[in-house]
Amino acid sequence: MYLEKFKSKGLAHISYIIGNDTEMAVIDPKRDIEDYIYTASMKGVKITHIFETHRNEDYVIGSVPLAARTGAQIWHGSKLPFEYGNMVEDGQVFEFAEFKLKVINTPGHTDESISIVIYDPQFGDEAVGVFTGDALFIGDVGRTDFFPERAAEVAGNLYDSIFKRLLPLGDQALLFPAHGAGSVCGSGMANRDISSLGYERKFNPMLQLSREEFISNKTSEHHYKPPYFSKMEQYNLKGPNAVTVPDPQPISPNQLNDAFSCGSQVVDIRPPEAFAGAFIPGSISIPSNMLPVYAGWLLSYDKDIILVGDENTCLNTAVINLYRIGYERVKYFLHGGIHSWETSGSKYDHLKGIFAGDLAQRIESGDDLTILDVRKKEEFTKGHLPGAQHIFLGYLPDQLDKIQRDKTVVTFCGSGRRAIIAASILKNAGFEHVNNCFGSIAACRKLDCNIIS
Amino acid sequence: MYLEKFKSKGLAHISYIIGNDTEMAVIDPKRDIEDYIYTASMKGVKITHIFETHRNEDYVIGSVPLAARTGAQIWHGSKLPFEYGNMVEDGQVFEFAEFKLKVINTPGHTDESISIVIYDPQFGDEAVGVFTGDALFIGDVGRTDFFPERAAEVAGNLYDSIFKRLLPLGDQALLFPAHGAGSVCGSGMANRDISSLGYERKFNPMLQLSREEFISNKTSEHHYKPPYFSKMEQYNLKGPNAVTVPDPQPISPNQLNDAFSCGSQVVDIRPPEAFAGAFIPGSISIPSNMLPVYAGWLLSYDKDIILVGDENTCLNTAVINLYRIGYERVKYFLHGGIHSWETSGSKYDHLKGIFAGDLAQRIESGDDLTILDVRKKEEFTKGHLPGAQHIFLGYLPDQLDKIQRDKTVVTFCGSGRRAIIAASILKNAGFEHVNNCFGSIAACRKLDCNIIS
Amino acid sequence: MYLEKFKSKGLAHISYIIGNDTEMAVIDPKRDIEDYIYTASMKGVKITHIFETHRNEDYVIGSVPLAARTGAQIWHGSKLPFEYGNMVEDGQVFEFAEFKLKVINTPGHTDESISIVIYDPQFGDEAVGVFTGDALFIGDVGRTDFFPERAAEVAGNLYDSIFKRLLPLGDQALLFPAHGAGSVCGSGMANRDISSLGYERKFNPMLQLSREEFISNKTSEHHYKPPYFSKMEQYNLKGPNAVTVPDPQPISPNQLNDAFSCGSQVVDIRPPEAFAGAFIPGSISIPSNMLPVYAGWLLSYDKDIILVGDENTCLNTAVINLYRIGYERVKYFLHGGIHSWETSGSKYDHLKGIFAGDLAQRIESGDDLTILDVRKKEEFTKGHLPGAQHIFLGYLPDQLDKIQRDKTVVTFCGSGRRAIIAASILKNAGFEHVNNCFGSIAACRKLDCNIIS
Amino acid sequence: MYLEKFKSKGLAHISYIIGNDTEMAVIDPKRDIEDYIYTASMKGVKITHIFETHRNEDYVIGSVPLAARTGAQIWHGSKLPFEYGNMVEDGQVFEFAEFKLKVINTPGHTDESISIVIYDPQFGDEAVGVFTGDALFIGDVGRTDFFPERAAEVAGNLYDSIFKRLLPLGDQALLFPAHGAGSVCGSGMANRDISSLGYERKFNPMLQLSREEFISNKTSEHHYKPPYFSKMEQYNLKGPNAVTVPDPQPISPNQLNDAFSCGSQVVDIRPPEAFAGAFIPGSISIPSNMLPVYAGWLLSYDKDIILVGDENTCLNTAVINLYRIGYERVKYFLHGGIHSWETSGSKYDHLKGIFAGDLAQRIESGDDLTILDVRKKEEFTKGHLPGAQHIFLGYLPDQLDKIQRDKTVVTFCGSGRRAIIAASILKNAGFEHVNNCFGSIAACRKLDCNIIS
Repeated sequence: MYLEKFKSKGLAHISYIIGNDTEMAVIDPKRDIEDYIYTASMKGVKITHIFETHRNEDYVIGSVPLAARTGAQIWHGSKLPFEYGNMVEDGQVFEFAEFKLKVINTPGHTDESISIVIYDPQFGDEAVGVFTGDALFIGDVGRTDFFPERAAEVAGNLYDSIFKRLLPLGDQALLFPAHGAGSVCGSGMANRDISSLGYERKFNPMLQLSREEFISNKTSEHHYKPPYFSKMEQYNLKGPNAVTVPDPQPISPNQLNDAFSCGSQVVDIRPPEAFAGAFIPGSISIPSNMLPVYAGWLLSYDKDIILVGDENTCLNTAVINLYRIGYERVKYFLHGGIHSWETSGSKYDHLKGIFAGDLAQRIESGDDLTILDVRKKEEFTKGHLPGAQHIFLGYLPDQLDKIQRDKTVVTFCGSGRRAIIAASILKNAGFEHVNNCFGSIAACRKLDCNIIS
Repeated sequence: MYLEKFKSKGLAHISYIIGNDTEMAVIDPKRDIEDYIYTASMKGVKITHIFETHRNEDYVIGSVPLAARTGAQIWHGSKLPFEYGNMVEDGQVFEFAEFKLKVINTPGHTDESISIVIYDPQFGDEAVGVFTGDALFIGDVGRTDFFPERAAEVAGNLYDSIFKRLLPLGDQALLFPAHGAGSVCGSGMANRDISSLGYERKFNPMLQLSREEFISNKTSEHHYKPPYFSKMEQYNLKGPNAVTVPDPQPISPNQLNDAFSCGSQVVDIRPPEAFAGAFIPGSISIPSNMLPVYAGWLLSYDKDIILVGDENTCLNTAVINLYRIGYERVKYFLHGGIHSWETSGSKYDHLKGIFAGDLAQRIESGDDLTILDVRKKEEFTKGHLPGAQHIFLGYLPDQLDKIQRDKTVVTFCGSGRRAIIAASILKNAGFEHVNNCFGSIAACRKLDCNIIS
Repeated sequence: MYLEKFKSKGLAHISYIIGNDTEMAVIDPKRDIEDYIYTASMKGVKITHIFETHRNEDYVIGSVPLAARTGAQIWHGSKLPFEYGNMVEDGQVFEFAEFKLKVINTPGHTDESISIVIYDPQFGDEAVGVFTGDALFIGDVGRTDFFPERAAEVAGNLYDSIFKRLLPLGDQALLFPAHGAGSVCGSGMANRDISSLGYERKFNPMLQLSREEFISNKTSEHHYKPPYFSKMEQYNLKGPNAVTVPDPQPISPNQLNDAFSCGSQVVDIRPPEAFAGAFIPGSISIPSNMLPVYAGWLLSYDKDIILVGDENTCLNTAVINLYRIGYERVKYFLHGGIHSWETSGSKYDHLKGIFAGDLAQRIESGDDLTILDVRKKEEFTKGHLPGAQHIFLGYLPDQLDKIQRDKTVVTFCGSGRRAIIAASILKNAGFEHVNNCFGSIAACRKLDCNIIS
Repeated sequence: MYLEKFKSKGLAHISYIIGNDTEMAVIDPKRDIEDYIYTASMKGVKITHIFETHRNEDYVIGSVPLAARTGAQIWHGSKLPFEYGNMVEDGQVFEFAEFKLKVINTPGHTDESISIVIYDPQFGDEAVGVFTGDALFIGDVGRTDFFPERAAEVAGNLYDSIFKRLLPLGDQALLFPAHGAGSVCGSGMANRDISSLGYERKFNPMLQLSREEFISNKTSEHHYKPPYFSKMEQYNLKGPNAVTVPDPQPISPNQLNDAFSCGSQVVDIRPPEAFAGAFIPGSISIPSNMLPVYAGWLLSYDKDIILVGDENTCLNTAVINLYRIGYERVKYFLHGGIHSWETSGSKYDHLKGIFAGDLAQRIESGDDLTILDVRKKEEFTKGHLPGAQHIFLGYLPDQLDKIQRDKTVVTFCGSGRRAIIAASILKNAGFEHVNNCFGSIAACRKLDCNIIS
């Protein structure tokens, strides 16, 4: 039995390929399917099955293009009217390679959620492992906030799926979830790749609760739902556009200006410090590794995207990160990067960084500035600087009128990275005095600043 | 927690790198250490610890060169006078990354064998997983035949290590053994990469036995011990030569002849059919992917090695396979491969392949030929052709006088691959009429030939 | 100025990418265009121009898919009714990057042949180099046998193109032809990649002739024209099918048998010795590196192709080699290679190799065997074994009736590689006693055999 | 004949591998020799010869380690007492592969300079090409400023080498120099990779001069000689240390501080804008791609080097760039890059960028600021902003006392990249008001600012 994990950084999505030297199955394929093709081709093996544990909401699933390339069959739960692939019934068994894959319904995160249990009949009749999708994670469980009107019901469904369907598979069964730490699909996940049902049964905090506690806990959780989720749900119900990874073309500073004025979005994917050092007025900062999580909040699907980098930028990573969440109009990149902008005589702007220690001092000395904290509500609640104003980054574009324009605004977050995105949004909106606190709360904690909660 | 497996094909040896984004440990490193260096370097992480689960006998361990490159500390069990690294006591705990590694003595396979248990204190106080070295495999347990005079004692030790030390870690603990299916260190291993202590407790056939049954079973097992094992034991006690991967130089057919007559070993690493089609008289056939298992039986450490391939040969794989088991004198390869030999006007020989169906007919019709079956004794016992003579491949060079020289010899094994090695040994020894049965017993079974056991 | 060569092995076709850090042009792109895309993408540069020096007859040109991916314009000579791209006039100049590309008509090889001259206006007004297509090679000139009824006319055209249009560009101009040594488009090419018009003017043997000698020489040349050339001409006039590189799927021995009986072509791409050692009855041997030159003679475009390899086979190379010359129906490969055939109990055959020295002796001793020499006529004429029968490999399938069936046939060529293809054709046609002379004439020469001419 | 160029970016050094499928020679190998080993190994060919066109002064030559790995012989000119390798005489011929390499003395750049002429005896007795080292470049000739007391003599030598030894080889000979555009070894080189002696004879500006003009021109040239050149000369006379590419280890912000206070050099290799956005006080900025040219001016060989990057940094490129010019003490890098510095609560600084248009306005409006232009003298002379102060970047550390400390200093260069290095030096030296003009003179030209010359 061959089993390999593929992690999509940022999304913290985990897909799997499982098989032997004859056939392989892919669980929850990402949209850029070349990795699976390559693995199968290196082994001279056919990909025959594709399983979707549920209709994913945080990325475009790669089932349809993978099926088109390989001839594999797609299988998903029966509780949603998918417009492609095959429905699978609870308890359905696939004789696959020399082992067995058994599908069990595990609703809760969504109604159509399934788990896929692995058996090795040569050894025994209990589960070797299980792909749990977004039902059970390592150290956490799936979100249950997608049906607010049925909140308690679906939380109870998830409890039952875990306690009546998954845990009974036995302590010995290895756990293969669809997300790892960092995902927007759960917040308490372990920083660890390996676990078993037994380990989770004993130590997953959510599994130590009674059914009532569990439901109460889940229904009081707060989750953000990025606007792009609904786009993904639509994609993943119909099957995505048959669009290959975009191939952005180089443009000059002049051409960028033209495209800009025709409504294109200019996205600067350099690290935060580089953006602060010099940036194109009107561009929005989303550092490359933050695209998977924040692009979906901030970028329109209906406008062309122009990427700005520098000599160290890996364009391809950014393009794939955007492609995975459905952005197909990544048409251009600035040829020569920010350097060519500067040498073309075009005007650039910069953002001052403010050291956490200096910021603390200015607060203490009563300076009249706005600290704009853009972290999640629960992070803010756990500890923030005195007097800080909280607006979650994803909501910032719609709540700019809540921020005073005549004061210096210091953007602030966990480490300064989300803050730079916020700062770029403010600059774009005409705020004049914007500083960014690199280090943010992490630095404040190290410096023993006054933090309140 | 980051955990990655590295499998050495052929040896079926599995090493691991475990760590976080700050530090990493390597368990049982292979000699070609570049993979670990690369992984750590890509993540910008320091390798700080190297653990050896035991003094390995089937390959040269890479601890010493890896420590030299990275500054990591080497740790191994205390029951053997290692001439490098540090001794670790039973129960010793390493605070490592954000988790804990605890060493427990698990003697049996060897006296100094240890296992390394992984804990994640952020979640719970029971084991997440355990590196078991050659104590417990997936579907099997380690060999206990290395101390024949203490056979029952060490088998009992292994039983106790498993039942009193490993299984009590809990069903939930994931299992990370040092070998997978195909290793010479155990014969019943599962064709599966994943398991837990719970799964093994329930389904590993050896763990269903009583202590007495276990000992009786282990002491009656038959294992082959290749002569190169003693070389490895010596290497792995002292620390290996500081020799980097050999860099064989191209030589011409004439130069090959000269080197040949000075005592070099000419090893043909092409696939069996290619060797049969045309080979250099005096060369021995060991197809590249069989080097890890059979080179140690057949090649001398004290003579230069010359490799022969063709346009499809990956020289580097062969060189690394030999280097891993201590062959450092891989000095030359035939430039242009067998084709340059042929066009140089040098004499070549060939070996006739005989189809299993035709062989069966000839047996039935009473043809007077020797079927030389070179499989392991237990394979032969399970089923062989009527009248077949059995000599294990590893013993063949020393038992040539048992084979009649005036009859046609048909070399035979599981699929025809070991048989070609045997055929090359016979040709080398002056046997004139040698045929090779490609397909061998596998083909016979498909053809419903008369097989006796 | 950036200039990179891309050589297609086997075809000995050379394409070029030329440009700066703003734009690039591709000259005579091969069909697998990823290399150009990658080069341009690594530099962040746009491919803006594609030039075809002529309608190629020996491979499918990649202009159309490359233009589709990049938006580049395609340019070719005006003397042929191409159904895609743009016509370019004699003398037309392209201001490109910071230099100039000037097109000049250089008919002869074909009527629409053009050359593209490179100027660097920052330095001088004479040519830096010239892309000559199939007009002028290093050490040879292009074929002029494609219009037999106008033989002297087109040879004269070529002479004039070289002497009146190319050489006048000056001795200093570097030469960038469309083919290197080994191509079927010329036979006297140098084993050297670099030259200039000056060097060719002085030392190219064909350029030392008078116009009359040149024409007489060219019109008396003998060239083979593989049947696939007409397919290529058709493709390259219309633009090729928009088919991406085929993705053959694994099949089992049983499935191979089924496909076989439905008319598929089974092509064994292993080295000659491996085919000789064991092969599937009915398969044809074309070692992977001989596909570019011999597939076009021997394989049908109208039947599926199944590839057979072994554990060392690089399937992808074979698939691309076939794709370049228009074979798009490479549907399957035997999973597990020849080894899985053998172990499935299927019957295999083998071919005996006969050492050149032994062959010579048998000839001398008057053995009654057929030596079938399948080299080109001019090679045969230069020297062959006494009594050898000559049939060019490409014609063999149509001339099998010229070979006596009751005698042993020894296939023979330059080194034994074409001979194995011939041997496989004979076996396929039911010849029973076929031997292959590995080493062939090369070995005979080294052994001082009796060679006549 | 196989010929491949290897360009070392930044140094603009070009080395070559030339050979056939039997043996290869390397001309002027760079210190990181893996590329040559790889090329030879992929072809299964032995590297047998290493030629040094002269004792290089701008990088550490890789001859000694390459010879150690391959057994190749090293050859260099006879006019310098090299402590390794073999002397070669004027006119000495190497029968190599199927062609000939003939060495001719071409003194001028240095006394021991040689050129290596390529002949292909199968075609003709004139040169196919020539490796000219630092004698003749494409569009320029070598520096002759290394022996100031013999200035006219060596310039005359170079003229004679070119006119009496190189050009007589014939217009047809291809030119293969040791440097391309961007090298510190010549300033007028063409932005073009390809040329011939004929093209240079006709269009190289330096070759249009009379001997007197040539000498007068060369002796009045101004070149900078970085201090590291003398280190290279010493290395390349003795043979370099047998040190492999350094393997810097990760350190934390605290460890960096400790190392810093023990005298280590902290080098920030991020792009200029990123440095401006946030940097570690005391660090010096040398963007990775500027290391080859400016590290040798600014870094000490006698102190450890700590590299600072970010998530986009390719550490390996920086390490190799430093290794090539002899920096072997690249011991550490900041783990997690600048981000980990920020989140550790350590103080950071930043540098304001000033747009060229704003700068011009401030000049016009009479602002009292220092424009510090750090370009080469000849660049400054060709055009600079009114009132600008000129100090060449390489001399800046020694001439800081020439700059007024109480005024704002705007660092300025060709495009803003050298300026950032200067800015970091000023900040390090305690200058408080430092701004960097991204875009610099390039932007000023586009904006039609007032530029004087």
